[in-house]
Amino acid sequence: VDAGGADRGAGEVAAGAVMAAEHGVRVLLFGPAAEIGAVGAGVHVVDAPVSVAKSRDPARAVRANPDASIVQAARAVAAGEAHALVSAGATGVALAACLFEVKRASGIYRPALALPLPTPARSLPVTLLDVGASAEARPEHLVQFAFMGAAFARAVLEVPRPRVALLSNGEEPERGNTSVVQAHETLARLGALDAASSDRADCLFEFAGNIEGDQVPEGAVDVVVSDGFTGNVALKLIEGVSGTMLAAIRAAALASPRSRLGGALMRPALRAFWEAIDPERQGGAYLLGLRSLGVIAHGRFTRAGFAQAILRAQRGAEDDVVARTHAALQAADALRAAPSRNRVSVRTGGGD
Amino acid sequence: VDAGGADRGAGEVAAGAVMAAEHGVRVLLFGPAAEIGAVGAGVHVVDAPVSVAKSRDPARAVRANPDASIVQAARAVAAGEAHALVSAGATGVALAACLFEVKRASGIYRPALALPLPTPARSLPVTLLDVGASAEARPEHLVQFAFMGAAFARAVLEVPRPRVALLSNGEEPERGNTSVVQAHETLARLGALDAASSDRADCLFEFAGNIEGDQVPEGAVDVVVSDGFTGNVALKLIEGVSGTMLAAIRAAALASPRSRLGGALMRPALRAFWEAIDPERQGGAYLLGLRSLGVIAHGRFTRAGFAQAILRAQRGAEDDVVARTHAALQAADALRAAPSRNRVSVRTGGGD
Repeated sequence: VDAGGADRGAGEVAAGAVMAAEHGVRVLLFGPAAEIGAVGAGVHVVDAPVSVAKSRDPARAVRANPDASIVQAARAVAAGEAHALVSAGATGVALAACLFEVKRASGIYRPALALPLPTPARSLPVTLLDVGASAEARPEHLVQFAFMGAAFARAVLEVPRPRVALLSNGEEPERGNTSVVQAHETLARLGALDAASSDRADCLFEFAGNIEGDQVPEGAVDVVVSDGFTGNVALKLIEGVSGTMLAAIRAAALASPRSRLGGALMRPALRAFWEAIDPERQGGAYLLGLRSLGVIAHGRFTRAGFAQAILRAQRGAEDDVVARTHAALQAADALRAAPSRNRVSVRTGGGD
Repeated sequence: VDAGGADRGAGEVAAGAVMAAEHGVRVLLFGPAAEIGAVGAGVHVVDAPVSVAKSRDPARAVRANPDASIVQAARAVAAGEAHALVSAGATGVALAACLFEVKRASGIYRPALALPLPTPARSLPVTLLDVGASAEARPEHLVQFAFMGAAFARAVLEVPRPRVALLSNGEEPERGNTSVVQAHETLARLGALDAASSDRADCLFEFAGNIEGDQVPEGAVDVVVSDGFTGNVALKLIEGVSGTMLAAIRAAALASPRSRLGGALMRPALRAFWEAIDPERQGGAYLLGLRSLGVIAHGRFTRAGFAQAILRAQRGAEDDVVARTHAALQAADALRAAPSRNRVSVRTGGGD
């Protein structure tokens, strides 16, 4: 766990680590020991006072600061001293450190950032990926994202057979940009093969076709796949629209003594709603497609959010989401071909 | 005005036409005369009982049914009998009829569908385009969309100098997919030329760079440009998130006698909020880049929404949004080069 970058300081991350340790997780915590102070059993602090969480050039900061807390934490994961990485810092920096130290899993084209989105429409979140690890995606990237998201939903969110859809501008198979249309073809073909096999026990997910944007908050599927550009725009829109609407409703509730009384009377009924959509319950964003799972908690989280991020990282490591993803991709013949010596891969004409 | 496709029937569209006529607009109304019945002054009904609004294959339906109300209405616009088209029907069908009959304006690569989105954050809507006319966009398409959206905001929404941004996954100029990054370069260059010129009177818009999804509902700019795939996903997400949240808040308000009382007390204060985000006030979606303006009202609108669509169509025609767009694109040297005889254009290596 990297304690750098938290709005409330490294002590808040340490408090979350202690909460997680009370549930049996052993935590290696990288951060400023002087600020963190004493911690309980199960948490081992490694003094790492340098933080690059506020860097504006993540890739350079990570390379230039091998002692930074996030880089040390990622290196510990790469070395097998820990089974998963949790960062309390900025997404870009954590992403750079993970790519640089933990590295891509074998056969994966590109890692993806997955975000389980809480929705009032159902109790389980809807996992959206990629929400911004890459700006563009070829069809084979989207196909892998489907497998990565499904393995994550099964291992970490405990969805037995996740329903996975492609985010598109229409439900019909021919709707979408080129990458979406081609990924749809591949996933539909794999789904047909899967349905034809007599042994469905190993089926990782059900391909639900395309869904449109309005079906995401409705909770129509468990996993929504998109390129990182669209996924990032989608994620920010969801945050922006819900934030703007809640602000407008709050303003209306404060508009007069009458509406203030009304708002006070409604508050207990609204509490369950606030709790259902509380982002801390989801632990943060999940970096999939690396040799180990990465969890990027939000800097504004309280200790409860950091504890949840650590507990979910443990669940992902215990269920071995990385190995599950690899096995499912291998069974579907959707792994990236090993690049030959002259760096031209057989299937795609080039690595990235 | 095509009266086909309205959920409440052609009579509701006719009632909207009568309301618009009371404001001085002359309306040619295409629809089933028997169903429409008598109308007031200023509305001329052309009997067109065939409707293809429910067709699942818009392009084929439009070609196969030259007598369909939407096709007749589009043909009347193409022939100069009317100055703008308003459809009460399905978006895909109206789009097909417009492309087939009204046709692209000269120098325009592709038309775009623009939607003014109401937001509680400000009184003027935020216009998002393209929300689904095309699934992919090259950089030069996005550049034209910026001009088209700005001319629309100025002519129809009466924003004197619209602020225009590209929707992206980060604010920095280098963030985005390839089309967004290249369009950003061109728009920034044009903006710099514009700022350097001594005569700023003709400036059509201010380029505000990239914005992220959360800044759309915050009303950070007047016009948001994206490809039709991303724009459609964004639009549906906005609808879905606001719908899901309102449903959850309504459910909370009905959860107990106490919260029901609270909801009743808050209702007057919330009314202004409902009115501000009422989609009927925006008239519908606007088809830009054709030889005449097209307005696609929503089938579920009441007469007030259809009247607003007609009034806005008139405003766009009076202010000549098509000519304004052309002049601004010409000044910026951003018109599409005329295709040569062998259909290879100078600038882009091919038409579409």
